Amino acid sequence: MFRPEIKVLDCTIRDGGLMNDWHFDKALVKDVFHGLAQAGVDYVELGYRADKKQFNPKDFGPWRFCDEQDLRDVAYECDTKLSIMVDVGRTDYDAFLPASESLVKLVRVATYVKDVDKAIHLGNHVKSMGYEVAVNIMAVSHALEPDLDEALDELAATNFDMVYLVDSFGYFYSEQIHYLAEKYLTRLKGKQVGIHCHDNRNLAFANTIEGIIKGINRLDATIYGIGRAAGNCQLEMLMAFLKNPKFDVRPIFDLIAKYFIDMKKELRWGYEIPYAITGVLNKHPRAAMAFMKGVHGSTFSEFYDELLNADDI
Amino acid sequence: MFRPEIKVLDCTIRDGGLMNDWHFDKALVKDVFHGLAQAGVDYVELGYRADKKQFNPKDFGPWRFCDEQDLRDVAYECDTKLSIMVDVGRTDYDAFLPASESLVKLVRVATYVKDVDKAIHLGNHVKSMGYEVAVNIMAVSHALEPDLDEALDELAATNFDMVYLVDSFGYFYSEQIHYLAEKYLTRLKGKQVGIHCHDNRNLAFANTIEGIIKGINRLDATIYGIGRAAGNCQLEMLMAFLKNPKFDVRPIFDLIAKYFIDMKKELRWGYEIPYAITGVLNKHPRAAMAFMKGVHGSTFSEFYDELLNADDI
Repeated sequence: MFRPEIKVLDCTIRDGGLMNDWHFDKALVKDVFHGLAQAGVDYVELGYRADKKQFNPKDFGPWRFCDEQDLRDVAYECDTKLSIMVDVGRTDYDAFLPASESLVKLVRVATYVKDVDKAIHLGNHVKSMGYEVAVNIMAVSHALEPDLDEALDELAATNFDMVYLVDSFGYFYSEQIHYLAEKYLTRLKGKQVGIHCHDNRNLAFANTIEGIIKGINRLDATIYGIGRAAGNCQLEMLMAFLKNPKFDVRPIFDLIAKYFIDMKKELRWGYEIPYAITGVLNKHPRAAMAFMKGVHGSTFSEFYDELLNADDI
Repeated sequence: MFRPEIKVLDCTIRDGGLMNDWHFDKALVKDVFHGLAQAGVDYVELGYRADKKQFNPKDFGPWRFCDEQDLRDVAYECDTKLSIMVDVGRTDYDAFLPASESLVKLVRVATYVKDVDKAIHLGNHVKSMGYEVAVNIMAVSHALEPDLDEALDELAATNFDMVYLVDSFGYFYSEQIHYLAEKYLTRLKGKQVGIHCHDNRNLAFANTIEGIIKGINRLDATIYGIGRAAGNCQLEMLMAFLKNPKFDVRPIFDLIAKYFIDMKKELRWGYEIPYAITGVLNKHPRAAMAFMKGVHGSTFSEFYDELLNADDI
């Protein structure tokens, strides 16, 4: 039997945009939204709403900013809700219409543990304008446990709707997901808990399943796994796994054939040894992404040793 | 703490050969054996010993037959033991030297549940010649439970050394691996239990970890995941996961850079939608492999529907 509480959020354009500075053309994004709606995906996250005073629109595609008009050009009101993400410290508080006037239904605030008070401040603002609010705590594989506990307790006291367990570096395996899922579910009673996994060690889909088994009901995935570095949980694998008859994997297969196979050859997410190395070593993927661009000039083994012996994380 | 009982078997050449009819040249296989020995891999499986009356040596590379002289050209006596695989019904009983005269230490008998009596007959013959013997029961995701139980009980009564849980179609996820691992470990008391996973749904490494968690100590993997269709558990991810200080992942990285990245582009194992579809639907990958060769001429969605509606498995 399926759990009707389970809801899937696709973040193909938002997380995938980290690989191409959000230069997805509108025809593609429109096709993606339509296909995801046909597939029965619950939420579609079309990008970040970054502060234009900090990021020059000339340097990025429209999904770095998610202006309402750009969103209306590609999406429409339907059972599939529109989501955007905002980063703590990179967001203009004045960039939000009241929710009743916006196509956006959900705003997800991305934060590090250390910035959770800022995330709550931003979340409160967005919540007061009528949006659903989620907080994604990034990089928890680098967090000190008491700090994470305190952040979760603070979030438990808000009126936000969801908090996401995020494996930013693709470092976790099942036992760690179980431990953290139990912690989040216990400390965040009454809120929905979500999971967002990266695939550096080929464990994103597996870890998402482990989240489901432990009771997590909000699941992130992307088409063909597109996303930063190794990418994310493959939406098509997740849809085929879930038993809710409202889900249909075929429109995802069609989008993959039309766009994402060629795009993967160009952008190179997925299983690549440099990404795997940062995953194994619990490091930010930026070093791997630089290595992939060929600027590093050393072997995999040298790259591994360099990261292994690095002082910083 | 690591479990010293855990032993890793690399089957790069044996399972990878299913993608190129075992046409690996000797310089490559020699490098592979040497690198795996440096990495601390416990067993290296260099191919099948197929019956030359059934398979014409002109049609295959040497690792389809694993003649002693070919093995001696690429491998040597060291802590890393040599393994070969034999298929029930495709093996010449006279093709084995006494173990004391052979470089081979381990012979693995591949069988379906229905052929387990034949596998035991063949295994007894090989065991009597002094080899370690394992039985790999293939395609258990298609087996009826009482038949599998009976096969395991028969194997428990032999003097063979190991029995492997094999997810031939890359269909299982963690809960199924847990269930079967418990079954194998319970019914095969006194024998080592192994696990051999395929990666159709990106779960081969994850399922191997789940096998470890449940107490399985013999682990199959291949370099860069090479193997039939989606391939196998990635050896480099497994080595980096295991904590035994005797393992060193660097020689594997070096082999990947030297050979396997280019080879993957040509042979196309790994995450590909047709392989994923047969995995999701618990089907043999042969249809996916035909689709990948472009002889099918339909879309992913049509392929999915065709398999979904097929009567046979």
